[in-house]
Amino acid sequence: MLIIGELLNSTRSTVKRAIEEKNAVYLQGLAKKQVEAGAGWIDVNAGAFASNEVEILRWMIEAVRNVTDAPLSIDSPRAEAIEAGLSAAGAIPFLNSISAEKNRYRALIPLVKKYSCRVVALSIDDSGMTDDMSAVCGVADGLIKRLQDDGVPADHIFCDPLVRPVSISSSYAIGALSVIEKIRADHPGVHTICGLSNVSYGLPKRKLINQTFVAMAIARGMDAAIVDPLDRRLMAVIYAAEALAGVDSFCMNYITAEREGKLEGQG
Amino acid sequence: MLIIGELLNSTRSTVKRAIEEKNAVYLQGLAKKQVEAGAGWIDVNAGAFASNEVEILRWMIEAVRNVTDAPLSIDSPRAEAIEAGLSAAGAIPFLNSISAEKNRYRALIPLVKKYSCRVVALSIDDSGMTDDMSAVCGVADGLIKRLQDDGVPADHIFCDPLVRPVSISSSYAIGALSVIEKIRADHPGVHTICGLSNVSYGLPKRKLINQTFVAMAIARGMDAAIVDPLDRRLMAVIYAAEALAGVDSFCMNYITAEREGKLEGQG
Repeated sequence: MLIIGELLNSTRSTVKRAIEEKNAVYLQGLAKKQVEAGAGWIDVNAGAFASNEVEILRWMIEAVRNVTDAPLSIDSPRAEAIEAGLSAAGAIPFLNSISAEKNRYRALIPLVKKYSCRVVALSIDDSGMTDDMSAVCGVADGLIKRLQDDGVPADHIFCDPLVRPVSISSSYAIGALSVIEKIRADHPGVHTICGLSNVSYGLPKRKLINQTFVAMAIARGMDAAIVDPLDRRLMAVIYAAEALAGVDSFCMNYITAEREGKLEGQG
Repeated sequence: MLIIGELLNSTRSTVKRAIEEKNAVYLQGLAKKQVEAGAGWIDVNAGAFASNEVEILRWMIEAVRNVTDAPLSIDSPRAEAIEAGLSAAGAIPFLNSISAEKNRYRALIPLVKKYSCRVVALSIDDSGMTDDMSAVCGVADGLIKRLQDDGVPADHIFCDPLVRPVSISSSYAIGALSVIEKIRADHPGVHTICGLSNVSYGLPKRKLINQTFVAMAIARGMDAAIVDPLDRRLMAVIYAAEALAGVDSFCMNYITAEREGKLEGQG
């Protein structure tokens, strides 16, 4: 399971404040903790600072780079910020995210190629969100094909079905699961990924919903997630789910996690 | 979700001791607690007492009957004990369990019909367990057809894929999930059910594995389970999973569970 740690996001109030106070130590602590907890990539987002996003993003990246070699995920819808981020990010960067929206695709695909990025590919085009899951699959199919035609290897594509809140429609979570399963079946080598927190929007005990959903998604073949790796329960569920999904041979990662105390207090 | 509470099982050491000490109050307490926690049926098993199973089972049932009107699940492989149990059980009993094994089927089907039981139908025949999931589906198909030919309504059949420990083979959990999904698709109206604890046999933090597996199974359409309803985390995951699986309209059961304090401390 590829874990992108989501905590260095300027839309979170504690991170926003740390940025405003130029408190690099706080951000560095968050980066280190996420790596220690199992994050393979650290997402960095400065989107709350529209007027000087590029400058802030560069500063955040420099701060993180000073304390960890973990690769970074550059999180912005804006090509200018993405480019600035990728040029500072170091090896094996993630671009979070491209989509099938025409302008966004056109602006970002040169960067995906230039930096040989792994890329989150959102299943959305200019017609916007839809409740029709076969349409979502169609958008994903088209986006994956176009990325591959543009030279992006399957293994660098992380397709996101864009999970919407189950509090709004009972079909949204199960629909996203079916998209994940279909993408995995139809596009060998392409990864699937989710941001987890949308699914629980509007419900109480959101972490419980997120933790339960991640288990379901891993059972459908999801192999990456943008999550809070400091949520110990969530990480424990991910270990358990991978063992159950048959992607953890002999349950060795699960058993190792237990030995390292990572499952303590769970179950 | 139909929950059968599994705790009144003589193979559990505390229950065995209570039976030996004729401690009806202990068993009654367990029955009441399971009903309060959300069990719709109470499983009763006296199988650890081979020489006087019938007598013990009758005594257990009488004890439970004195404190709750909840329907019972009579749990034995032996027709004599099942008959004794069903005759004492009261309304809407479960028979746990029938299978496609010839002698077992022949001995138990008259009781299923006589008592209009709901019945756990194990996907196993005289050739024993197999790793071939299409063979398991074939056994399930045949058993369901035979039960229906014998007059058992689809709605009374609870097909169990017989989950085996994921510690033994990485494919066992995911294979059972595929069986659940296929039975639901091929046999409208027939339920699917699991005993949960087998899947985690041989692994540490077994409850974590069981809780994670139940979420995956509910996402595939499983609508009944034989579980420990006093495991608060497990019950919370079940509420969350039903909301995510789209079988809890407007997440009302989930939100009600939260209001009633059943999700407290979770997530």
